[in-house]
Amino acid sequence: MKLLRVGTAGSERPALLDGEGTLRDLSGLVPDIDGALLADDAALARVRAAADSRELPALDRTGLRIGPPLGRIGKIVCIGLNYHDHARETGAEPPAEPVVFFKAPDTVVGPNDTVLVPRGSTKTDWEVELAVVIGRTARYLESDEEALAHVAGYAVAHDVSEREFQIERGGTWDKGKNCETFNPLGPWLVTADEIPDPQDLRLRLWVNGELKQDGTTAEQIFPVAEVVRYVSRFMTLYPGDVINTGTPAGVAMGHPEPKPYLRAGDVVELEIDGLGRQRQELKDA
Amino acid sequence: MKLLRVGTAGSERPALLDGEGTLRDLSGLVPDIDGALLADDAALARVRAAADSRELPALDRTGLRIGPPLGRIGKIVCIGLNYHDHARETGAEPPAEPVVFFKAPDTVVGPNDTVLVPRGSTKTDWEVELAVVIGRTARYLESDEEALAHVAGYAVAHDVSEREFQIERGGTWDKGKNCETFNPLGPWLVTADEIPDPQDLRLRLWVNGELKQDGTTAEQIFPVAEVVRYVSRFMTLYPGDVINTGTPAGVAMGHPEPKPYLRAGDVVELEIDGLGRQRQELKDA
Repeated sequence: MKLLRVGTAGSERPALLDGEGTLRDLSGLVPDIDGALLADDAALARVRAAADSRELPALDRTGLRIGPPLGRIGKIVCIGLNYHDHARETGAEPPAEPVVFFKAPDTVVGPNDTVLVPRGSTKTDWEVELAVVIGRTARYLESDEEALAHVAGYAVAHDVSEREFQIERGGTWDKGKNCETFNPLGPWLVTADEIPDPQDLRLRLWVNGELKQDGTTAEQIFPVAEVVRYVSRFMTLYPGDVINTGTPAGVAMGHPEPKPYLRAGDVVELEIDGLGRQRQELKDA
Repeated sequence: MKLLRVGTAGSERPALLDGEGTLRDLSGLVPDIDGALLADDAALARVRAAADSRELPALDRTGLRIGPPLGRIGKIVCIGLNYHDHARETGAEPPAEPVVFFKAPDTVVGPNDTVLVPRGSTKTDWEVELAVVIGRTARYLESDEEALAHVAGYAVAHDVSEREFQIERGGTWDKGKNCETFNPLGPWLVTADEIPDPQDLRLRLWVNGELKQDGTTAEQIFPVAEVVRYVSRFMTLYPGDVINTGTPAGVAMGHPEPKPYLRAGDVVELEIDGLGRQRQELKDA
């Protein structure tokens, strides 16, 4: 299923995009798309049954904003340098174990919302990423199979990054990863049953129409199952938590000088096969 | 005012500790202690007026758990190496600008709850810290005065840290800061009007009755106002966000070998003048 949240801005309601591309209203059936729903097999089964029988009312698409596909996000764990080609372009050695950092849930916006270039920024960069949404509480997982069983679904994430704040201002990367609007998410949460192999997804990103990133999750140094298992040994993952699993090559930082960092007026588009497409215009904060 | 949340575990209600040490029930007056309350001057004034006139019913203390003093925490921003004496004991140079990392809100427990030593941990360490609670949305603040006007209050935080996970496992510090139960908070949120000088607070921590940390916020490299102002340039701070402002000298990592890292059965007590006392027993995860 493709689950999403649409409506007038700030009042998005749970919805479903069916196989024919019709938006169907879930608000009579479930209160929201969040960790509580994802952990509730019975509620998910009701949604699936209603969608399969087309009992759900269709939503008029006009004037609707697509919000982030989760109404409440617990935490966002990010994996750094997780693609062989991206590690090479930054000049870093491939890490021996996953590099973990955080984005605050308040950085999340809808897939087509404005992204703000922070004041004083000269190095705002793009990163298309596969986001993993957790569906069951995960502690000290032991096997890859167990790890994948804790995944509710997948989405497109844009891990917007300010490289000077991230790398040149002392301390950890978090400083350059948490500016306002720095995590567009969506348009959909696609349930895991529709993604037979999360290591076979093509990710692409365009800036002003020019293809900048064109990678595949096959290049991930630590695949999704290993990432979920690994993270669960250091912290507990809860339903509604999100893991951004890293970006392939092609970011601005990896370009020769002058590096094409983002500026107000630029348009970024992102797509992952089967997970939908995002489009953001950049503005000054 | 000293605001807190007490009740049967999992059903804590908003309360107030009055000047005579009597717990008073706020649940008839406000829905919870959270960012919405802290940003609402009128609601805070109603609480103050009721407390001053003793109109609030007293709470029976028996059998009550003190929860974290905030019902919902947006994000927890942490400042590393922020005391001259602590930077010295770790062998680090004092940072040129604040070191920022994150703790997930799901690591927060009540002030007297159990703290879990993670599986595989040999370096679980303590850190008493002054927590700053944000009361107004803060973006790109310019002055120290403006910064302090965005602070709703203060609390005791225990920034429990696993040093191997934090420092020896690659990547940023977050990996060693986000284990389950790693952020006891409370007992109270003390409103800012009762803390005339946040740079004149004594912080102490005992392990099994032995005094290990005995510092003062006067030793902070970046004082509270500067920290709030600085962080607001990189990310937006919202009501109900928390900043852990760093720890003074005396952590286990700073001791000579064999370093006295925490183990199951140890008891840690923490106190900051005017902000109350915590007591945690360690258990194995």
